[in-house]
Amino acid sequence: MHSERQEGSPMRIAIDAMGGDHAPQAIVDGVLRAAAERADVEFVLVGDEAIVRALRATWPRNVRIRHAPEAIGPDEEPVRAIRQKKRSSLVMTVQMVNDGEADACISAGNTGAYMAAALLYVGRMPGIERPALAPVFPTTGSWGALVLDVGANVDARPQHLLQYAVMGSVYVASVEGVKNPRVGLLNIGTEATKGNELMKAAYALLEQANLNFIGNVEARDVLAGVADVIVCDGFTGNVLLKAAEGTAEAIFRVLREELTGRWTHKLAAALLRPAFRRLKARMDYKEHGGAPLLGINGPCIKAHGSSDARAIHNAVRQAIAFVERDVLGAISRQFG
Amino acid sequence: MHSERQEGSPMRIAIDAMGGDHAPQAIVDGVLRAAAERADVEFVLVGDEAIVRALRATWPRNVRIRHAPEAIGPDEEPVRAIRQKKRSSLVMTVQMVNDGEADACISAGNTGAYMAAALLYVGRMPGIERPALAPVFPTTGSWGALVLDVGANVDARPQHLLQYAVMGSVYVASVEGVKNPRVGLLNIGTEATKGNELMKAAYALLEQANLNFIGNVEARDVLAGVADVIVCDGFTGNVLLKAAEGTAEAIFRVLREELTGRWTHKLAAALLRPAFRRLKARMDYKEHGGAPLLGINGPCIKAHGSSDARAIHNAVRQAIAFVERDVLGAISRQFG
Repeated sequence: MHSERQEGSPMRIAIDAMGGDHAPQAIVDGVLRAAAERADVEFVLVGDEAIVRALRATWPRNVRIRHAPEAIGPDEEPVRAIRQKKRSSLVMTVQMVNDGEADACISAGNTGAYMAAALLYVGRMPGIERPALAPVFPTTGSWGALVLDVGANVDARPQHLLQYAVMGSVYVASVEGVKNPRVGLLNIGTEATKGNELMKAAYALLEQANLNFIGNVEARDVLAGVADVIVCDGFTGNVLLKAAEGTAEAIFRVLREELTGRWTHKLAAALLRPAFRRLKARMDYKEHGGAPLLGINGPCIKAHGSSDARAIHNAVRQAIAFVERDVLGAISRQFG
Repeated sequence: MHSERQEGSPMRIAIDAMGGDHAPQAIVDGVLRAAAERADVEFVLVGDEAIVRALRATWPRNVRIRHAPEAIGPDEEPVRAIRQKKRSSLVMTVQMVNDGEADACISAGNTGAYMAAALLYVGRMPGIERPALAPVFPTTGSWGALVLDVGANVDARPQHLLQYAVMGSVYVASVEGVKNPRVGLLNIGTEATKGNELMKAAYALLEQANLNFIGNVEARDVLAGVADVIVCDGFTGNVLLKAAEGTAEAIFRVLREELTGRWTHKLAAALLRPAFRRLKARMDYKEHGGAPLLGINGPCIKAHGSSDARAIHNAVRQAIAFVERDVLGAISRQFG
């Protein structure tokens, strides 16, 4: 439930301390960095209190720990998990937003469980038919590209894609500061007549909407930064995301193999280490934090499962911006 | 029309000399390499005779030129182009298969026009509802992966995906020599219950079929080589293909930027040039030639638009293998 924060009380962010490949250490480290940066914000780490507390001898005064006796694993069936584990760190983190105890929540845990918990406990915004998971893709020619949906809703209708476009435009303008964001429809050709039935129908809706719609965008051009918001159904978006990740992984795997063996290669690899590190950073979507769940009636950020402390720090910054710039209010006004 | 070759007469391959970014030079060079390798095969270059003939002073006796007064550009609307330009190199190349004048055909030109021409002039195999465009993706852990469909048919039904799986298995076994090919369904999770309505229905059909079906495969695992045949609808397959291409391009673009500037970077880049060249070759799907149009009643190979002489040479080898190993007969027996 989306409720205005009370004047004077500090902003509060709830973070699932037990979710993600590097939890709880990376989660705690990331939150502590954010806590040092923003003394005016309160942070609540939700997880096994004994385990979390043992990670540090002293804690800053704006970080609290809330005990959650259960945890949801990355491979658990989402809906069953959130029903059976109501005292899990993931569910309790989301419930804090619903109960008005937190202004935003973050988890790097089971994506399906987090989306299901957000839908069940926080609910959809009035007027929004389907929420969308909206990560930022790295691009070579621009600030990045918000892609939505990447899997919250696998059988989308044209009307859903129109709503994604509106929500994505508002988010990118508010949080990333992009003026008049360029909206592209993910398609398999640039002409208006291209694509499957869903995309042809969505094209017609987007053309008539009050958006900076630039037309169809091919998958190969997404990473070149031709649009600020890329709209697609959750199935296609998930394939796009995983294909980009898989290709990057494959290239780095082959590169590592090629850069061993001869001494000249080893020497060169050593000379290039800083450049490779920058390359990886530039191709790393974790730079932008996590993926907001747009259309949910409270700020919920999904951090990547492989998040390190830096990624969590960025996800916290993103959650704070989401609240401070009143993204929910701005989206509501579009659907009022 | 698929007709058995007459005993004693040499195999004949028709090649569109005017299609592709580097036509006609790269096409002619690739065909001449193949002609030197296979004196027992006849090659017919279809294109503007004056232009093609001027590229060489002398021609081997197993290469002929057939004059085509028109050419179809890469951006022309496919169906209109093949209807209006019946004397184009692309249409005349395909028609040679239909007329029994060639055993197989190849084009690096307009993909949509080539697929439309193959469907119109050669037609579907009996029992096949939709043809599929089936390129080989490079993989890091295996020989490669045949992905179908990548765009011949954008609104697929579950039954089409089953037919793709059968055709893909036969092709990979016959041409790539893979025994009992592993078939995967492209999906957004590995559990049987994952995905959109199309994929759930296709999963049920594949499970019951006489195939080595290994279940769902995520896009990120395609390039790791977890399956030999990846089945998907043409829209999703096209997004997968373009996303992989776009990510590889983006990484190489950033790598080039990072490897300039400091002298240590330039030195290292020089030392690594051979390794980078091997990296690019390993990630290059052109190594496997072109994409067969499976389900068309004659061997039609679509070479990539950016094909160089080596890619055309590989596409010709692939067309020869397609004919010699009687892929059409093997597919027919599955649908008899």
